[in-house]
Amino acid sequence: MKKKPLILVSNDDGIDAPGLYTLVRALKRFARVAVVAPSIQQSAVGHAITVRTPLRAYKFHRNGTLFGYAVDGTPADCVKLGIRTLLKEAPALVISGINDGLNTAVNVIYSGTVSAATEGTILGIPSISVSLEYTKSPNFDTAAKVAVMFAKFVLQNGLPEDTILNVNVPAIPAGKIKGIRYTRQGRSRWDDEFYQRKDPKNKDYFWLAGKMRILDRGEDVDQIALKSGYVSVTPIHFDLTHYQFLEMMRVEWDGKFKLKL
Amino acid sequence: MKKKPLILVSNDDGIDAPGLYTLVRALKRFARVAVVAPSIQQSAVGHAITVRTPLRAYKFHRNGTLFGYAVDGTPADCVKLGIRTLLKEAPALVISGINDGLNTAVNVIYSGTVSAATEGTILGIPSISVSLEYTKSPNFDTAAKVAVMFAKFVLQNGLPEDTILNVNVPAIPAGKIKGIRYTRQGRSRWDDEFYQRKDPKNKDYFWLAGKMRILDRGEDVDQIALKSGYVSVTPIHFDLTHYQFLEMMRVEWDGKFKLKL
Repeated sequence: MKKKPLILVSNDDGIDAPGLYTLVRALKRFARVAVVAPSIQQSAVGHAITVRTPLRAYKFHRNGTLFGYAVDGTPADCVKLGIRTLLKEAPALVISGINDGLNTAVNVIYSGTVSAATEGTILGIPSISVSLEYTKSPNFDTAAKVAVMFAKFVLQNGLPEDTILNVNVPAIPAGKIKGIRYTRQGRSRWDDEFYQRKDPKNKDYFWLAGKMRILDRGEDVDQIALKSGYVSVTPIHFDLTHYQFLEMMRVEWDGKFKLKL
Repeated sequence: MKKKPLILVSNDDGIDAPGLYTLVRALKRFARVAVVAPSIQQSAVGHAITVRTPLRAYKFHRNGTLFGYAVDGTPADCVKLGIRTLLKEAPALVISGINDGLNTAVNVIYSGTVSAATEGTILGIPSISVSLEYTKSPNFDTAAKVAVMFAKFVLQNGLPEDTILNVNVPAIPAGKIKGIRYTRQGRSRWDDEFYQRKDPKNKDYFWLAGKMRILDRGEDVDQIALKSGYVSVTPIHFDLTHYQFLEMMRVEWDGKFKLKL
C-alpha cells in the first residue's frame, strides 16, 4: 500500500488556535500531518525570520497525545525549522492556516500566514495559505473543506515553481457560497491611525489602529470576489520586480545618470 | 526662497548605525532630514508591523543634539508612526538605509530595509531602499553619493504609484564602479542549515545559518550586476499576484472544482 502523503501545517495564530486544529483534523482523513507552529500569536509579522537569537522547539500535546512542535519564532521560522531539522521526511505539501481573518489586498505582505506558505515554496515544497473572514464566532469547517479540496488537487498536480496559492473564504453559511474565483491581489490602503495614550508614569505610547480602504472594484479582485460570496484563490509569487516600470527605466533612465563618485 | 524638501530616513540596522548616519549627513546638504528608526537591530524582520503591543518613541541624541526618534518597533512601524504621528509635515521622500549588507534576490522579502521603503510607498510617499554589500570595514560614502543622486532625481520626477526603488551598491572602490544597471530580482535559494546545540541546562536550541545560492545568470539580474561591478537598481512593487499563472488557472482550473460544502 502506498504511504499517505505528509503535509506540514503551520499558521500565525499559534499552535493552540482553533483554525489550525480544524484544518489538521480534516487533513488527517487522507494524509499524515506534521504540525510546526508558533508557540504564541504572530500576526502581522510579515516574512520575518529569526537570525539574531536561537530558536527553541517544544513538543506540544493535545488531549494527552503529541500534536506537534511549538516554536518560539515566526511562521517562516516554523516552516524552515520543520523542513530542515524537525521532520524526518520532506513534506509533499505545506498548508498555513486556517487564519482567523482574511489575507487579501495589501495585507498579504503583512501576513504571517502567507509567509509560512511562501517559505514552504522557497524551500521547493508546493504551499497553500488558507484564511477565513473574521467573525466573532468563527466556524472553520467550510474553510477546512475548501483547504482539503485544494490540498488534494495540489498533491496530485503540483504547482508551478515559486507559486503559492493564497485562498480566502468568506464567513457566510456554506450553502451561500457561490463558487470559486481566481483573483488578483487587490489594491488598497490602510487608513492608519495611532491612538496616543499616556501610561501610568505619564509617558506616551502609540497603538496602531485603522481601516483598510479598497481601491479596486473589478470582479477579479480578491476582496470583491469575497464580498460577492465567492472563495478567492490568488496565485502569488515572491518576485517583486515591477517589470513594466523596469522596461520603461531601461529606455528612459539609461544614460541619464553620470556617476560622480 | 523655497523650503528645502523633507526626507524621512529609516533603516533596519538601528538608529545608531553608521550607514544611517552617513546617509543623513549626505542628505542634509540639500534637504531637511527627519530620522525615525528602530531603537535596536531589526534585520530579517520582513514586512512586520506591531499590532498587539503599543509602540514607544524616544528622542535620540548624537553629539548633544537631537538626531531623530528611536522606536521600539520594526522598520515598517517606524515609517508608519513617523508619517502618521511624529512628523508635523508629510515627507517628500522616504529613504531606508544604508543597509550593512545587500538586499537582493530572495532576501528582498526578508529585508527590514526594503520593508521601510515599501511602507513609505504604501502610504503614498516615493521611497528608496539603499544597501551596501557587506564587508568587515564598510565605507558608506560611495553608497551615500548614489543615494543622493537617486533622491534628487526622485524628488524632481517622482516614481510611479506603488513602485519602490531597491538600490544595491557593490563594496568596491568608487573608481572601480562601472555604472548603473536596471535589474530584476534574481532567483535564488538559501541552503539553510540549523546548528543544533545544547544550552547549559542540556536543552536543544537551533541557530539559523546557511548560504544563498544564486540560480539566475542573466546580465539583468541584481546579483550578477553587482558581481560585475555595477550599482543595481531594481524597481519593485507589492502586488504579489502571479499574473501569468492566473491566466492559466482561469482557463484550466475553472469549472474543475465542484464545491461540496
